[in-house]
Amino acid sequence: MNFCSHCGHTVRFAIPRGDDRPRYLCDECGTIHYQNPRIVAGTLPVSGSRVLLCRRAIAPRKGYWTLPAGYMENAETTVEAAARETLEEACAEVTVHGLYTLINLPHINQVYMMFRADLVGGFDAGPESLEVALFEEHEIPWDELAFPTIERTLRHFYRDRVEGDYPLHISDITAEDRERYFGSA
Amino acid sequence: MNFCSHCGHTVRFAIPRGDDRPRYLCDECGTIHYQNPRIVAGTLPVSGSRVLLCRRAIAPRKGYWTLPAGYMENAETTVEAAARETLEEACAEVTVHGLYTLINLPHINQVYMMFRADLVGGFDAGPESLEVALFEEHEIPWDELAFPTIERTLRHFYRDRVEGDYPLHISDITAEDRERYFGSA
Repeated sequence: MNFCSHCGHTVRFAIPRGDDRPRYLCDECGTIHYQNPRIVAGTLPVSGSRVLLCRRAIAPRKGYWTLPAGYMENAETTVEAAARETLEEACAEVTVHGLYTLINLPHINQVYMMFRADLVGGFDAGPESLEVALFEEHEIPWDELAFPTIERTLRHFYRDRVEGDYPLHISDITAEDRERYFGSA
Repeated sequence: MNFCSHCGHTVRFAIPRGDDRPRYLCDECGTIHYQNPRIVAGTLPVSGSRVLLCRRAIAPRKGYWTLPAGYMENAETTVEAAARETLEEACAEVTVHGLYTLINLPHINQVYMMFRADLVGGFDAGPESLEVALFEEHEIPWDELAFPTIERTLRHFYRDRVEGDYPLHISDITAEDRERYFGSA
């Protein structure tokens, strides 16, 4: 951020009076530009014993497999965001169940919220997917998953499926976890 | 938003190519300025049979009672944000338990995430609170609560406390709900 989005004046990065962390400040119009984490909402769509995955057609991690998920938009709910992303990426309608994983990624200012869901009807590759397919557990491409959040959500799912009980799992992924996941790439 | 925060050029509000909703666009440098919902994280701090509430010293709803909560910041987790807000507003340390209410407010682009917590030690009014106090159920100032999210979280708590089981409650508050809550104020 270089300029005030309100008045166009240059901004500076400093701690406002009465605050305890630096913000982008406009000395011309007085606006304080707060920046906050974004929510990534998505689903784990299930059809019988199989799980739906999408192979990414776009960066980052083009060609890798993911659960349908993306940035929550203004004016929608978390459940609506998760269902919309599923429709956009997999052309799939789902019945959304409970929140299943809540994963904080503080180093990139993201909060993942993945919901369990049942696939309703068919699916197809949306514009952001190369292909979309259903996988049995032994078919999951563990070495070709796009993000550590996706692997973690799937690992929880297969562990919990043994008992048929799917509590909310809250966890964090650190910069070190992420580096380990992506290797030197 | 009137100006591009990257290059200072004026922006226009239009649907980018390949997108389906309007964004602030800079024709000079090509930046698309996405805007996304913000997370409000907080706690429901419990001490024995009592619940801790803060009376707001700042707008909006100055003088009304609330649970400690506020905007999640970059570079922190949801649990850290909830604990930090509790420390700031009530000078209270807490042990944070599970996520308890997840409330979408799509008309104001907020997602509330309230965690149950146990109060550890004392408390005091932080700079954003006029006073902080513990309340038995029959003492809760239902007509002087600051926000519908706070009332809803407390209502769930007293219903669930009967059985001692506190599942996650996901719900929405619409513009109409909010208008009904605040009346003509």
